[in-house]
Amino acid sequence: MEFGSNVTVVEPCNLYECKIGDSSFIGPFVEIQSKVVVGNHCRVQSHTFICSNVTLGNYCFIGHGVTFTNDLFRKGSPSAEENDWLPTIIENNVSIGSGVTLLPVKIIEGCVIGAGSVVTKNLKIKGIYAGNPAKLIRKL
Amino acid sequence: MEFGSNVTVVEPCNLYECKIGDSSFIGPFVEIQSKVVVGNHCRVQSHTFICSNVTLGNYCFIGHGVTFTNDLFRKGSPSAEENDWLPTIIENNVSIGSGVTLLPVKIIEGCVIGAGSVVTKNLKIKGIYAGNPAKLIRKL
Amino acid sequence: MEFGSNVTVVEPCNLYECKIGDSSFIGPFVEIQSKVVVGNHCRVQSHTFICSNVTLGNYCFIGHGVTFTNDLFRKGSPSAEENDWLPTIIENNVSIGSGVTLLPVKIIEGCVIGAGSVVTKNLKIKGIYAGNPAKLIRKL
Repeated sequence: MEFGSNVTVVEPCNLYECKIGDSSFIGPFVEIQSKVVVGNHCRVQSHTFICSNVTLGNYCFIGHGVTFTNDLFRKGSPSAEENDWLPTIIENNVSIGSGVTLLPVKIIEGCVIGAGSVVTKNLKIKGIYAGNPAKLIRKL
Repeated sequence: MEFGSNVTVVEPCNLYECKIGDSSFIGPFVEIQSKVVVGNHCRVQSHTFICSNVTLGNYCFIGHGVTFTNDLFRKGSPSAEENDWLPTIIENNVSIGSGVTLLPVKIIEGCVIGAGSVVTKNLKIKGIYAGNPAKLIRKL
Repeated sequence: MEFGSNVTVVEPCNLYECKIGDSSFIGPFVEIQSKVVVGNHCRVQSHTFICSNVTLGNYCFIGHGVTFTNDLFRKGSPSAEENDWLPTIIENNVSIGSGVTLLPVKIIEGCVIGAGSVVTKNLKIKGIYAGNPAKLIRKL
């Protein structure tokens, strides 16, 4: 693990070989797997799960009970081969509401995802998204 | 913290400056923030997160993995000002199914929310609600 | 509790009177209630809640933050009578994505449930399902 300065972690918390940037906060009941990068000044709130191959930019807010994924079960079941696991890229200043589930996607800078949404596609327009599947509600 | 009589808390559990009424039960892996009031004879099941400014009446059932919110990200990101955080009022005898996400709302007495729903508006009619967004399925 | 051989449990974890089969893996922040049977070679990932009366076959994958239920609140509130609690049967080789909520259902062998879905009905055709409520996307 590689921690920047002023990182706060509230126990109980399960962190594996991840990288957490300066001044970031990790809440309780969080699991972060290996090969995850959390940028600087991020908040990852309680009950959130961040899987391998997720990269968060700086100043990101990840709400409570947010779940990331990296495997689309393309062969009809989970893949045991790490090469099949897909990346998620969350750019700077993205805010993800509580209870959101994300497939492996890229979300551009400054987007806001409403609570309880399911993000199934890349979000290429800066805006507010909500629903299952998440749709653009308003541009920002 | 202020606990009534006969309160049960199953560890591990993170409770901050909240008030829990008589004979209420709080399951494991729950986080309850400050400025939360849980009434009497309530059950708050495992993996649930209750944020600041939530008030539960008496005889409420909050299922597993339920997530409350208090911030609508109105400025395009989380607000650091507590004055911007909105309240949630859950009246007596409300039952919220597992896996539900709630925006800051008011739910009147006796409502039932189906598992996996996302509650985005005040619920003013006593009934069963389900879906994302949650809609009235049947009056009670 | 009854554990087969080569069972892995990552703490913190709350397991009650359940049965876990050979070579199965239970991740952290998981709760499994009594009267649950997990088959052989299963993975139950972090933050998942498995309620009483759930039976998993062999080689099942249960993602992160998955929530099972056994009570439809048919009388307008949770039932205190165990006889009212309904069973869930998950057959062999079923893969349930992260963030899924399931009502008490039967899912036949080999089905795949997309992340963030809400399963409200029995799944009788082998296929990939997604959405709230979960619908058949593609036969397998």
